Parts: sequence; structure tokens; C-alpha cells
Amino acid sequence: MSFIVTVRDHLMVAHSLSGETFGPAQRLHGATFIVDASFRADELDADGVVVDIGRAAEALREITGALTYRNLDDEPEFAGINTTTERLCQVIADRLADRAAGGVLGPSGTRLSSIAVTLHESHIAWASYERAL
Amino acid sequence: MSFIVTVRDHLMVAHSLSGETFGPAQRLHGATFIVDASFRADELDADGVVVDIGRAAEALREITGALTYRNLDDEPEFAGINTTTERLCQVIADRLADRAAGGVLGPSGTRLSSIAVTLHESHIAWASYERAL
Amino acid sequence: MSFIVTVRDHLMVAHSLSGETFGPAQRLHGATFIVDASFRADELDADGVVVDIGRAAEALREITGALTYRNLDDEPEFAGINTTTERLCQVIADRLADRAAGGVLGPSGTRLSSIAVTLHESHIAWASYERAL
Amino acid sequence: MSFIVTVRDHLMVAHSLSGETFGPAQRLHGATFIVDASFRADELDADGVVVDIGRAAEALREITGALTYRNLDDEPEFAGINTTTERLCQVIADRLADRAAGGVLGPSGTRLSSIAVTLHESHIAWASYERAL
Amino acid sequence: MSFIVTVRDHLMVAHSLSGETFGPAQRLHGATFIVDASFRADELDADGVVVDIGRAAEALREITGALTYRNLDDEPEFAGINTTTERLCQVIADRLADRAAGGVLGPSGTRLSSIAVTLHESHIAWASYERAL
Amino acid sequence: MSFIVTVRDHLMVAHSLSGETFGPAQRLHGATFIVDASFRADELDADGVVVDIGRAAEALREITGALTYRNLDDEPEFAGINTTTERLCQVIADRLADRAAGGVLGPSGTRLSSIAVTLHESHIAWASYERAL
Repeated sequence: MSFIVTVRDHLMVAHSLSGETFGPAQRLHGATFIVDASFRADELDADGVVVDIGRAAEALREITGALTYRNLDDEPEFAGINTTTERLCQVIADRLADRAAGGVLGPSGTRLSSIAVTLHESHIAWASYERAL
Repeated sequence: MSFIVTVRDHLMVAHSLSGETFGPAQRLHGATFIVDASFRADELDADGVVVDIGRAAEALREITGALTYRNLDDEPEFAGINTTTERLCQVIADRLADRAAGGVLGPSGTRLSSIAVTLHESHIAWASYERAL
Repeated sequence: MSFIVTVRDHLMVAHSLSGETFGPAQRLHGATFIVDASFRADELDADGVVVDIGRAAEALREITGALTYRNLDDEPEFAGINTTTERLCQVIADRLADRAAGGVLGPSGTRLSSIAVTLHESHIAWASYERAL
Repeated sequence: MSFIVTVRDHLMVAHSLSGETFGPAQRLHGATFIVDASFRADELDADGVVVDIGRAAEALREITGALTYRNLDDEPEFAGINTTTERLCQVIADRLADRAAGGVLGPSGTRLSSIAVTLHESHIAWASYERAL
Repeated sequence: MSFIVTVRDHLMVAHSLSGETFGPAQRLHGATFIVDASFRADELDADGVVVDIGRAAEALREITGALTYRNLDDEPEFAGINTTTERLCQVIADRLADRAAGGVLGPSGTRLSSIAVTLHESHIAWASYERAL
Repeated sequence: MSFIVTVRDHLMVAHSLSGETFGPAQRLHGATFIVDASFRADELDADGVVVDIGRAAEALREITGALTYRNLDDEPEFAGINTTTERLCQVIADRLADRAAGGVLGPSGTRLSSIAVTLHESHIAWASYERAL
């Protein structure tokens, strides 16, 4: 038995991907990533929610705000890292997990069992990452 | 290994939420909830389905029909309960579980392993509840 | 030949509708309205846009912000008015038109040929209103 | 902790379903199935992906290409089988699993933990099948 | 200045298409058509609506109900007619127009200026037909 | 009275926008543009279609294929041009119009009355351009 609440945001970035696997995506190109951040808990809190959705949306917006309208190839934090859709899911989920553990999402945020992040890169492809808290 | 079948319906309700967490949503307002009800089974039945989708859709429509076009603040069944999106997911899932156990979904409905309900409150926020049967 | 730019927002309101036509919707209920506001121009401005999308989104957010999380039946501005989806489209479009004419959207906003607003009340019903400027 | 990548495709088929459960769907009719194929892994590969998304999409297209624009009632492979949405999910997932095990998706495809396939038969109904690899 | 209201329904049919243009779609296959029916008027009626949305949805359901779960190749009404997505849009729009003119949609239905029907055959293709009343 | 057929594709590009209006979008960033190309005609051809949808989709794919996985700031064809969503709509529509006029879409493509292109840059913003043929 578990509850999940999800909020959606987006980011618009340039990047390139290293490795023959990526074919033309080895060139500098870009993507809009529609970001769905899901917070899971076994029980609801006293207010009847998984987590304060306002704080959750704000935390997500801070994280996407620090990434959007940038060329990820030029961001020191991604030096040597392929910023694939999968990897960006993990980066965003980990940052949300840090905020949740740090109390940024309020007391309910510290009781979450897991966080999942899905990034839609187009209408025909998306990726997700799920991790325990 | 498992199979899931999902049907979609919706309800349109007024309500208010108690607790400072909810900010302006403490005022009487409203929502369209797009409802996705998912039925899971480990095996398909002799017809090759998880459950009779016609019966599943009808059961969901009865449940949403009893909630829609109402002010949930005035419904005795919700007295003292915050009708958050998460809580409404649980209410609908529990009612579907009761119907499944009671045979309303047919014999296959009694073999289900779990039910999940997602309520979309907008294009940028939704919640889910999943429970075993 | 014309260009259109559209931004999406939403509002969550309670209301009731007067008239036998509305059946159960005569009761106090509610809706999430996903709002798409479209701005049309015959030519792009010097920046290559119909209108500053940031200003357009902000104008729309101000308008939806003044309506959301409310019971429209209690709002003086709607006294004696059926707040149907169609009518709310018109209200929002007219407010956007006023802002455009008043220069709130910037100089390009004063050259628009028309504004259209669509409100999605569910996944199976929506309404629109289009007017010249 | 796990990663998922999903690609979308579709098929357009005629078929009929055997069994009173299906009511009018016992007649020869048809469906567009929007197909979402999801590949899950515990870790990303050296390129930072679950699986080469180009190969995954191509494998899915081969499988849907062998089914689409056909009357499934006339296909020998489905003789005596009800081609329900659930069953078609399983067929497609099993074919993807065979290709993954056979190396068609590349080395990363052999490390997948599970495959899930969802078929959307309309805007109000869909089914899924998930299996381990 | 005009108002539009739209309702969504769907149909699931088998058919084949005559002509080399259609390639593999010359074979018997099928489709789910998501149907959006739009009703346009210059002014709202006394209730504040374009047309009674309940009657509009019911009229559409009658029309889709007479087409769905069938093989259109066997329907006498389509003898010698290619049941392309475009043509089916026209058939449905014309039937709605007849009902509107006949008063089935109520008095407001006789004041409509136009009807448009869109059929989505997949997530990547759709067609529309618009006609005056 | 008119018919429209629409096909969807997408492109993934890096670019930057010149002008204070664009705020952070003046930096090099990127976008996935979901592209909807619509072809309008007053009458259907002998096959019962607006235009051969296969040829239309292929023409669109050639045009998006020449743009995708690139940094538009480095493309000579866009030197001195702000590659806004609106402008890219026009570029794609004009290229489709050239192909239509040149017979690439077949004889029916030369009878089209207009072409419209919509680019969705996110779930909350999109732009369109429509032109006569």
C-alpha cells in the first residue's frame, strides 16, 4: 500500500552526447525535458497528503531553474558526464532526495519511501529513475 | 510477471482543504479529477483479459457518479476528512476493491492482485494510491 | 498568413450553473480549467515573435490567479452570470485583450489581430472563444 | 534503484474477440494501439543509458511492423488466441525480450532486468504487461 | 467573434482502403478513431452556452455507436466509398449537422454557424472536416 | 467547407535568441519541438484524402531531418535570424509549401489551399504559422 504525488515542470537545454551509440546526437543539439517528479509514502500525513505539493513543486522548480536555458556541455558539474535523459533523471531525483532529507519539503518530506523522476524528451521517448530514500 | 488494465473516467467537485499547508486551497474551490483505475493480475483469465473491462468501467462510473457534481464539504461520508487528491485516490480504490471482492467485476475480479487509482487534478499535478487485494 | 503563440495555465474553482439544461451541474460542484491563451498577429515583430511570451504568460497568470481557488458563485463580478466554460473563456480573453490594448504585453501586444482562449474542463470536453482586437 | 527508458510506436489492426464478455467487440472491428515499450536496468551502461534507444526503437518498429495493417484473425500465429489488448502486450514484450536476450539491442540489452509494454487502445483504456528478463 | 464547444468520443473499426496510395493500408486492418466534435456559434444562448453539451455528447455517441465495433467494408452505407479518416470526419459532421438542424441538440443547436469534426487515428496523424450550417 | 490532415514529427536543436526580451533564453540552450504539419483542401481527391499522408509525413521528415540534432546558431541558413518558435514554424511551413507546389506530395498536394505548422516547445507553450498556397 502506498501513495504517490507527482508534479510536472520542464527545462530547455543544449548538450551533446559522447559515444558512437548516439549517432547524430553526438553533435551539439538540444531538448525540452518535461520533468515529472513523484514522491512516494506508505501513509499520508496529518493533513492527508504525501508531501506539501507547494513545497515539492517549488523544490523541483529550483532544481530545473538551475539547469534550464543552459548548454550542459559547459556546466562544470557535468564535466566528463554524458547528460543522457536517464542520467538527468538521476541528477534531479538525487537533488530532490537531498532536499527531502534536509527538511526542505517539510516534515512529511522526511518520511518519503522513494522518489522517481521521469523526463520526456519527445512525444515518443522518455526515461525514468527511481530510488529509495 | 503481471498484467494491468486501466480505464479512465472523471469527476467534477467542489471542496476546501483544512490546514495552513494548503494556502489558498483552504478556500472553497473545485477540481476536475481525471481518474485512472488500474487492475492488476498475475495471469489472464480464460478470455485473455485481466478483468471484464466493461464491468470495470461501469464500476468506476458508479463510484465517480456518486461523487461528481457535488460539494464534498457537504457530504457526510467526508465529515472530518480532508478530501485531498491522495485521499480521494484511496476512497475510489477502496470502493473498487470492495466491488471486486464482492464479485461485481465478475469471477476474474476476485483474482486481482492489486488496484491502483490515479487522479489528475491538472496538467501539472496528480496523485496515486495502490493497494493489494 | 498569420502567426499564433499559445501559453497554458490553469484554475481550480467551485461554481454552480443555473438552468435545467445543466442537470446535476446545477448543484455546487467544481472544475479544473486548463487554460490555453492564443495570441495572433499577421507579422512577427523585430525580435521574431508574435508577442513577448514571458509577458503573455505573466498576464495570463495574473488573470487566472484572480479567479483560482475561489467559489465563483460568491464573486460579485459574476453576480447573475452563468459561469459556463464558454463564458469563462470570454472573460479571460476580454481581460487579456484589455491588457494587450493597454500595453501590458509590450508594443507587440498592441499589434495583435485576435485573441483566443480555450478552457479544457475535462479530457472529453472543452470550449473556446475568439475575438478580434 | 532502477532506470527505465521508454519508446513509443503504434499499430493499426482488425480483429474480433471470442467470448460473451466482449459484447459487440465479438464482431470484426479494429484498433489503433499506441505502444509504449519500457526497458528497465539497475545500472546505466558506460554510455550512460539503459539501452541504445535507437536500437530499442528499431526493434519495436520491426515487431509492430510485422503486426500492423493486418487482420489478426487471419494470422496463423494467433490461431485460437484471443488478441486482447493484454495478450498483445505480452506478445510484444516477449518478442522484445527475445531480441534483448539475443543481443539485438546491443550488450546493454542483455543486462536488462525487465521489459514492460503498454498498449493504449483509446483515450480511456489501456493495458500493460511486465516481465522479468 | 465566436464561441466553440467540443466533446470527445471514439470508435473502433475495421476497414480497408482502395488505391495504390494506401500501400499496406489496402489490406483489411483497423483503427481507433478519437473523435472531437466542435460546435460553433457567434453568440451564447440564454443559458450562457453554445449548445447543450449533454445533448451534443449524446448525439455524438449515437453516431459513433452506429459505427463502432464494425467492419466498415461490410456496411452498405459505405459501399464504393473509401472510408478514409477525412471522409469519416465528413460523415460524422454531416450527421451532427442533420441532428442540429432537426432540433435534436435543442433550440441552440439550430443557431450554430458551423460544425467541425477531428478524428485522431494515432498519436502522429489526424484529420478534420469543417462545414457551415 | 474544408478538410485538413495533420502529421506529427519532432526535432531537437540547440540555439540562442537575440534580444533582451528573451531573458535567459539569450544563452545557448535547446528545445525539442514537436511539429504538427497540417494540410488543408476544399475537396478530397479521387482516393478520398486531402493528400497522400505517407508522402506528407516523408516530406516533413526530410525537413525536420535537415534541422534536428544541430545547433541552429551555426547553420548558415539562419545567420542573422532569430530562430524563435514562430519563425521555425514559418520555415517549415514554407519548405512544405515549396514541396507541395513542386509536386513532391503528389497531384493532390498541388491543390492544397493552405498549410499550417505548429511547434510545441513544451507542455505549456506552442506557436503556429498558417499560410495560403
